[in-house]
Amino acid sequence: MTPGRPVPPPRAQPISPVDRPASPANSDDLLAGNRLAAAYGAVSDNSGLVPLTLARRAPKDDDVEIAIDFCGLCHSDVHATRGEWGSQHYPLVPGHEIVGTVSRVGSAVDDFSPGDLVGVGCMVDSCRECESCLEGLEQYCENGMTGTYGAPDARNGGSVTQGGYSSAVVVDRRYVVHVPGNLDPAAVAPLLCAGVTTFSPLRHFNVEEGDVVGVVGLGGLGHMAVKLAKAMGAVVKVFTTSESKVPAALELGADEVILSADKDAMAAAGRSIDVIIDTVAAPHDLNPFFRTLRRDGALFQLGLPSEAMPPVNPGALIRRRIAYAGSLIGGIAETQEMLDFCAEHGVVADIEIVRADQLNEAYDRMVAGDVKYRFVLDTSTLQAPAKEANA
Amino acid sequence: MTPGRPVPPPRAQPISPVDRPASPANSDDLLAGNRLAAAYGAVSDNSGLVPLTLARRAPKDDDVEIAIDFCGLCHSDVHATRGEWGSQHYPLVPGHEIVGTVSRVGSAVDDFSPGDLVGVGCMVDSCRECESCLEGLEQYCENGMTGTYGAPDARNGGSVTQGGYSSAVVVDRRYVVHVPGNLDPAAVAPLLCAGVTTFSPLRHFNVEEGDVVGVVGLGGLGHMAVKLAKAMGAVVKVFTTSESKVPAALELGADEVILSADKDAMAAAGRSIDVIIDTVAAPHDLNPFFRTLRRDGALFQLGLPSEAMPPVNPGALIRRRIAYAGSLIGGIAETQEMLDFCAEHGVVADIEIVRADQLNEAYDRMVAGDVKYRFVLDTSTLQAPAKEANA
Repeated sequence: MTPGRPVPPPRAQPISPVDRPASPANSDDLLAGNRLAAAYGAVSDNSGLVPLTLARRAPKDDDVEIAIDFCGLCHSDVHATRGEWGSQHYPLVPGHEIVGTVSRVGSAVDDFSPGDLVGVGCMVDSCRECESCLEGLEQYCENGMTGTYGAPDARNGGSVTQGGYSSAVVVDRRYVVHVPGNLDPAAVAPLLCAGVTTFSPLRHFNVEEGDVVGVVGLGGLGHMAVKLAKAMGAVVKVFTTSESKVPAALELGADEVILSADKDAMAAAGRSIDVIIDTVAAPHDLNPFFRTLRRDGALFQLGLPSEAMPPVNPGALIRRRIAYAGSLIGGIAETQEMLDFCAEHGVVADIEIVRADQLNEAYDRMVAGDVKYRFVLDTSTLQAPAKEANA
Repeated sequence: MTPGRPVPPPRAQPISPVDRPASPANSDDLLAGNRLAAAYGAVSDNSGLVPLTLARRAPKDDDVEIAIDFCGLCHSDVHATRGEWGSQHYPLVPGHEIVGTVSRVGSAVDDFSPGDLVGVGCMVDSCRECESCLEGLEQYCENGMTGTYGAPDARNGGSVTQGGYSSAVVVDRRYVVHVPGNLDPAAVAPLLCAGVTTFSPLRHFNVEEGDVVGVVGLGGLGHMAVKLAKAMGAVVKVFTTSESKVPAALELGADEVILSADKDAMAAAGRSIDVIIDTVAAPHDLNPFFRTLRRDGALFQLGLPSEAMPPVNPGALIRRRIAYAGSLIGGIAETQEMLDFCAEHGVVADIEIVRADQLNEAYDRMVAGDVKYRFVLDTSTLQAPAKEANA
């Protein structure tokens, strides 16, 4: 998180396996109902993002085909495409903050119609049978939910899912949500991951008017946590390591900004907070934050560092019955609830729209923390699909 | 925890500053209403426990004077008297699992009468004004509760409290509980700390019929957790490092015993438990236990190791919204509720009664894990008090 640092050059030279003139989908594909879709994705862990063409399946009975308008860029897209979270199936088209317009629906779909503005988040399927699925907590599916990209799709022949940096996607209706019409669709895209990931723990903790919410880190997730907590009526304290972020945090609505390296400021914040949303995905010492929590407070860690966190001192947890908890995105019904809440309160993400040919630069700027606060791909800038699919 | 290990010799030769013939309290003290009480305590961090005489205050309006019958030996008594938790005020008489009979009451006391069987646990005062105190959670008093021993007692001239290894104690009625008549008083003593410390998180988690409770460690706290969870109708799985403890755990009522070093057994227990009560006070890796928790499960750590715990992997917390929490004893009302619950369900601690002159040996056996499951001091074995108080 080094705002103000000059944008580094793209870390990898994109290679272009699909450097062909634009052309319409061929007639065989159209006959079968399949669609070729333009996309940007990685072809190896060091390829950077390059133009690709995807074959999207024809909608099955329960499917919704979506012409994607916008897709947010999430930090996990960077980790995944670069192979930093383990080996991947390439080509890999990332993107799980999808907003688009329904283009076709399957015969059994009656809750979506062509022309509807819809969203897809981090999941496109789950077992639908386990306790978590039945409770509407599909993100915790006990048989493993199917991620929007890079996941074997059991109900579609085991093919690997491909995400939203694409002109189209086909998703089972159960994993599609309605996007309220009164919000800027581009700025809604990040709500599908960053929004619901912060909304869910705030709701799980029953944050209400007057509660004090702490937010650690002011990136894509952190800025959403500030906006959502404020919209819930909370008093919001932002923790940051960087003095330069203070004005931006106040501008977002924070009631107070605490420099987490300032021991006096941290001591002054002692026992003042009900719940902390910790969005930092790098290893960091949580013990100073536990000390800012009131009795029965909780710290929800949302980011998963690739290296070990410093040890937790259980004394802080014991002395005030504090919980150190995790939380993973949100369920589908909760995602819809979050969008409706955002529509009611006029909440969207602060975004910077990028073209497809800026994606690699955007990734490097994300790694450098140089974005306020979320990049969103305008999919109209994708090249038209090639004649044949490569992913 | 090395059961079966031969009892080591006492680690310190007791010194005997009060090696005088027994004598009744002197008349001045009796006139003032003060009482001299026999006791056993430490006079330095390496003195071991030695006979001492305490001056107990005359009951003030709200005070209850208790002739102590039994006092449990808690592991924290060992840490405190040996100075392992920081410097102490010596002489120090430990003991916060007190059962006794009311001998006198102050003028404003109408809820206790001479002859009543009563108990005192880990606290003898708190601010009575903060949010936690007003909610009956005095153990989390925001101004610091007054421990039953070793704590400056603000409402009594700042004198340092002295605990229950003694023939008598005087305690404000607000911190005294009624002991049900149908339970063995000696076996009730450990309920005042070990009992309520495990009861409180089980209740806080709303454990009910059919829930699955895991218990890590089978000492004083662990064996109470097993009994209380069973009495609440839970299925109980005990985790132990020691195969030799399996029969004892089953005898206590555990439905299953899992050897925590057995990776296959731990894997088989994956995602099967609702809440874990972790009673181990030595550093240990919690990550394998998190993996045994169901979605929305919680692990309550009750013991405070003196060295750092291994790092927590937040991935386990995130993927199933698990909470790693602490819990500290219980409030006064909850302590009474716990005793009433125990009376209803016939639950007491498994104890071994010791004489005062066996206390040092008992401490060493506790450190060696050689006790099933709690030592209780029979205070009738204390020497009569000396003519003058030394603590």
